[in-house]
Amino acid sequence: MSWNTFGRVLRFTTWGESHGPALGAVLDGCPPRITLSAEDVQPFMDARKPGQNRFTTQRKEADLVRILSGVFEGQTTGTPISLMIENTDQRSKDYSEIAKSYRPGHADYSYDAKYGIRDYRGGGRSSARETAARVAAGAVARLIIPEVKITGFVCELGGDKIDRDNIDFAEIGNNPFFCPDAEAAKRWEEKIDAARKAGSSLGAVVECVAEGVPAGWGAPVYAKLDSDLAAAMMTINATKGVEIGDGFDAARLTGEENADAMRPGENGPEFAANHSGGTAGGISTGQPVVCRVAFKPTSSILTPVDTITSDGEATQIRTKGRHDPCVGIRGTPVVEAMMALVLADHKLLHNAQCG
Amino acid sequence: MSWNTFGRVLRFTTWGESHGPALGAVLDGCPPRITLSAEDVQPFMDARKPGQNRFTTQRKEADLVRILSGVFEGQTTGTPISLMIENTDQRSKDYSEIAKSYRPGHADYSYDAKYGIRDYRGGGRSSARETAARVAAGAVARLIIPEVKITGFVCELGGDKIDRDNIDFAEIGNNPFFCPDAEAAKRWEEKIDAARKAGSSLGAVVECVAEGVPAGWGAPVYAKLDSDLAAAMMTINATKGVEIGDGFDAARLTGEENADAMRPGENGPEFAANHSGGTAGGISTGQPVVCRVAFKPTSSILTPVDTITSDGEATQIRTKGRHDPCVGIRGTPVVEAMMALVLADHKLLHNAQCG
Amino acid sequence: MSWNTFGRVLRFTTWGESHGPALGAVLDGCPPRITLSAEDVQPFMDARKPGQNRFTTQRKEADLVRILSGVFEGQTTGTPISLMIENTDQRSKDYSEIAKSYRPGHADYSYDAKYGIRDYRGGGRSSARETAARVAAGAVARLIIPEVKITGFVCELGGDKIDRDNIDFAEIGNNPFFCPDAEAAKRWEEKIDAARKAGSSLGAVVECVAEGVPAGWGAPVYAKLDSDLAAAMMTINATKGVEIGDGFDAARLTGEENADAMRPGENGPEFAANHSGGTAGGISTGQPVVCRVAFKPTSSILTPVDTITSDGEATQIRTKGRHDPCVGIRGTPVVEAMMALVLADHKLLHNAQCG
Amino acid sequence: MSWNTFGRVLRFTTWGESHGPALGAVLDGCPPRITLSAEDVQPFMDARKPGQNRFTTQRKEADLVRILSGVFEGQTTGTPISLMIENTDQRSKDYSEIAKSYRPGHADYSYDAKYGIRDYRGGGRSSARETAARVAAGAVARLIIPEVKITGFVCELGGDKIDRDNIDFAEIGNNPFFCPDAEAAKRWEEKIDAARKAGSSLGAVVECVAEGVPAGWGAPVYAKLDSDLAAAMMTINATKGVEIGDGFDAARLTGEENADAMRPGENGPEFAANHSGGTAGGISTGQPVVCRVAFKPTSSILTPVDTITSDGEATQIRTKGRHDPCVGIRGTPVVEAMMALVLADHKLLHNAQCG
Repeated sequence: MSWNTFGRVLRFTTWGESHGPALGAVLDGCPPRITLSAEDVQPFMDARKPGQNRFTTQRKEADLVRILSGVFEGQTTGTPISLMIENTDQRSKDYSEIAKSYRPGHADYSYDAKYGIRDYRGGGRSSARETAARVAAGAVARLIIPEVKITGFVCELGGDKIDRDNIDFAEIGNNPFFCPDAEAAKRWEEKIDAARKAGSSLGAVVECVAEGVPAGWGAPVYAKLDSDLAAAMMTINATKGVEIGDGFDAARLTGEENADAMRPGENGPEFAANHSGGTAGGISTGQPVVCRVAFKPTSSILTPVDTITSDGEATQIRTKGRHDPCVGIRGTPVVEAMMALVLADHKLLHNAQCG
Repeated sequence: MSWNTFGRVLRFTTWGESHGPALGAVLDGCPPRITLSAEDVQPFMDARKPGQNRFTTQRKEADLVRILSGVFEGQTTGTPISLMIENTDQRSKDYSEIAKSYRPGHADYSYDAKYGIRDYRGGGRSSARETAARVAAGAVARLIIPEVKITGFVCELGGDKIDRDNIDFAEIGNNPFFCPDAEAAKRWEEKIDAARKAGSSLGAVVECVAEGVPAGWGAPVYAKLDSDLAAAMMTINATKGVEIGDGFDAARLTGEENADAMRPGENGPEFAANHSGGTAGGISTGQPVVCRVAFKPTSSILTPVDTITSDGEATQIRTKGRHDPCVGIRGTPVVEAMMALVLADHKLLHNAQCG
Repeated sequence: MSWNTFGRVLRFTTWGESHGPALGAVLDGCPPRITLSAEDVQPFMDARKPGQNRFTTQRKEADLVRILSGVFEGQTTGTPISLMIENTDQRSKDYSEIAKSYRPGHADYSYDAKYGIRDYRGGGRSSARETAARVAAGAVARLIIPEVKITGFVCELGGDKIDRDNIDFAEIGNNPFFCPDAEAAKRWEEKIDAARKAGSSLGAVVECVAEGVPAGWGAPVYAKLDSDLAAAMMTINATKGVEIGDGFDAARLTGEENADAMRPGENGPEFAANHSGGTAGGISTGQPVVCRVAFKPTSSILTPVDTITSDGEATQIRTKGRHDPCVGIRGTPVVEAMMALVLADHKLLHNAQCG
Repeated sequence: MSWNTFGRVLRFTTWGESHGPALGAVLDGCPPRITLSAEDVQPFMDARKPGQNRFTTQRKEADLVRILSGVFEGQTTGTPISLMIENTDQRSKDYSEIAKSYRPGHADYSYDAKYGIRDYRGGGRSSARETAARVAAGAVARLIIPEVKITGFVCELGGDKIDRDNIDFAEIGNNPFFCPDAEAAKRWEEKIDAARKAGSSLGAVVECVAEGVPAGWGAPVYAKLDSDLAAAMMTINATKGVEIGDGFDAARLTGEENADAMRPGENGPEFAANHSGGTAGGISTGQPVVCRVAFKPTSSILTPVDTITSDGEATQIRTKGRHDPCVGIRGTPVVEAMMALVLADHKLLHNAQCG
């Protein structure tokens, strides 16, 4: 895997900046003869796209995906699939402040330290706009693993967790937060409104469950499913933590409490619990694969923060412009996309060695 | 990166099983003319090696490392460094029970589901014994980044956290738990003794801090330092979660609280806090890189657990033999090794593009 | 390296089919702060583009390159550079014959055997049109290695070799064959005219010389400069052989004849000869790197050839349409591009380990 | 692929120097449940090993292979297979001359230029002794592709070609030259004896034929079978050229002459010829895959050659010691091993995407 490429045998490469003419992904290694058109991709783009309600950035992007290669007469050919999304609402605003000062928590300073140059318009390559390309690639990946059902949702927002007894996946589409708990969704509405008015921002935790993964995907030692999922999730903007199964809570259990006891079942073993999140030794067990991802509150806030200019002088900065008050929300379709891409990759990888 | 290889330009490949004749690592891409001998590696092996006190497995391994290639007259030559550790205490015990039944939480079932075969002696390739090879490779990696000081420690054991105000790195070597809080170390001694007597096991959280990392290491988008660290840590046996900086706690802060305000300093910017754990946009900021890793309690416990045989029949299993009551403890040198390997890789990667 | 990606630290991925809407390359790992605009790329596109004279295919393509990412205010930023070329002259012709029958020597049959589907319009992904994307990437690669001067030329056409005593690099641009020998160029004109009239095609050998490569690029053992160049050249359509230095002729020399004796020089050693083509042990010696590539005659000929239909029936096929009578000619800029890409990659790779 | 690793999903990494304690290969990605023991590997080691007759180096190495991992109860487990060969005849000789002066044509100067250090004992990592490790890995690769029969032979030695009408594969084992033409073998015996007496050396061309490769292996564009084979062969010491099928001769044919006409056959198409060497568009056609590799004469000769010292002074050097008068001969089993490794890799790669 290189800098802007992810995957082992199903590999995708993304390119593009927030305010460039376009961005895209090249997905390589897709099996042939899968029915694919832009219509298969667009719904996932729509789920992620900005400007849909007052809880996300007001940038308006249609996020229409064009498939430029790899499909012939409605079917994949096994050659690279080039997916392109044109940027249409790169508002011509004044970037002079960001050009001259570093926003704490952003990639402004670190990019300059590394490259000696940065595209400061909207964060350039460090913008979460890059994730649009992954969602497109992820939509194709889903078609490679039709046996798997992937469900992402926000399970915690601003420190307020959903009630696990109140989870109803059918609710996820009924609110702008990908929240499976209708009660929590109501509370969150107020929380975000308050944060937005205060010029502040909130963090969130996104959970993703993949049902239907057969036992045997994943590969020791450095391609463990846990490791590839962790890597995938931690490439998403604003993520600072990842857990498989019980994650950090598992560190607080005893061996007996944490054991997922097995018993004979009709289709392979049945498990008394799923503390492990569907993997053992990095290989899937047949249980649902469960992953949780922590998103920090976006550092693009209206509250002034101490910082320095690119010349090293002390100053303060307020990040005006159109920003998500809680980037974790729109991170949900991205987490799903990464889950799909990792699982599809491991399905093919399993075919390679054990097919 | 292939299955048993990790890294981008500094790459290591490990091989070997728990009860095979030997195990080892091949480290490729090491710069030339670094002074290296087995004496540079052995102290790190000794820190990880089993059988040193009653809180770890009683398997006795000298874990002596032989350097078989890549060094000439005491200096690295730029060619692959082959590191080999012979297994000496593969006790000839009766594995018939493990051969026939799956230990819940272990890789027994998932390996069989994947490969249709497994080396059941001591867990074969899924054994944490594999980490000895990484520690050896990590010791070499440290020599590539002499500007960086890496300190790993257990910050939570069985749910009992250290007191952050009581951290003294000098204490880490004074107890068998890599614990920087002398008070906590005393409590943990009792906890582990109790768990061991109960035939149970405990989880732990390991923290690792790398000081001296200059700004500019790490690469967008799929080679973010956060992502590579997460991947690295989640390849270690029994890990189920990873955090950079504040991690999941960051999801509970507001944007203002989480901002690491900057001010001019003598050697680049100074930061008012390090919530981000030393990275922004996946690139180091010059602050200490901070990572935390959750280890589940080992599933090798004496308490009987329901399971199935390889023929699919219901049974119960108790894991006798020599096991760590808390694998997180000996995971500490492994976490350090992975930190060193990732950072050294990124130093070279930075040289490649921006050198 | 994946299927459609080439390179180690400077990596490019190409996508696109002959008759799709566009094709392109994503170049990843380019150093920052290199001055780059489409004007730097276009001259190399123009050298390769079709329809410029009667000796190449009459397909008319402007081959205008758009840089969609990775450049800000005229400088590279270190992020992926997306290069796109729109197809404009995908003539709507009748492909029914090619759809139903396999052209011997083409990828028609092998693609179908592999994928069970193929984009038969103009050869789809197997078309030499893909090389336009590489030429674009190669133009950027040249800017990474300004110290190197790359010169490609046809040294043999239809079995007729240039006179080595008559080489004048200034002549290369004076004829449509990239021929450095004015006399040979005249003979070749007649040869190709005759082949074209006969509905036949001719093979060619392209030579490429890179001057200014310092000693020390290339890496043992599986990243030898010889190996990476051979791999690079053999990915070009219609290539069937590659040589470094004297190549196959070296196999006919004795050890004394083949030795490139050394003597002290002002800037490092001087060599009495360059049988080795500028490498020893896979690493550059400071001499010019010399490579030769054999192009077979294109199999797209008007002469009928026995073949089978996709249903396995016997038939004959004549390949009508617009084809190069000698694909080696337009292969010359592609060979140059691949030389630039390999050398730039190795410059960065050298920086990584030995920088 | 990294510096000392080759392959895509079946990957091997070699390590070790000519005069170190040992050398070896780690083969990763091998399918599970293949019967494997050292006895499967040893015959191929024996074919390559030195000191078997007066036509090769007199260094005596048993080249016994130990399998240190990846096999359990006689079967592969899917985990990395570590293969180790101890060096036993690293004769303690005086290397002071080679330490101080560069042998023209060797890697002495280029290694020093790159690394600033070199293990001059027997060439260190640049020694052809490294190929022992590949032969071991190749022996395992053969077991992954039991459907394929690989035959390597010397087809030209010192400029003297075999008579193609006189090829009898049964003869290959009857002479010390892997020569399938009994008449040529007699001539070569005299040629080599003469060269050896003159303190000179000879080049050779090795041909390798793989029968039984099904249609569909290989992958466009940068994993073409032709490209991967070319890369593989050009990593072997002393190689300077590679051809697939007719290779450079194809450049001298017309399109009609070069076309491999097809007709219906019982098991897929039959071909009237195999100019293409079994590939089209980089993908196998079902015909035998044919590859030819040019080996230069070894530069280790007794005849004095002008050179420089490591201090840059003019001097002369004669390479005493034990060397092959024609390295191409013992290159034959290495060419076979690389063919096996590339084909096995592509079989698995095909499984991944199209399985």
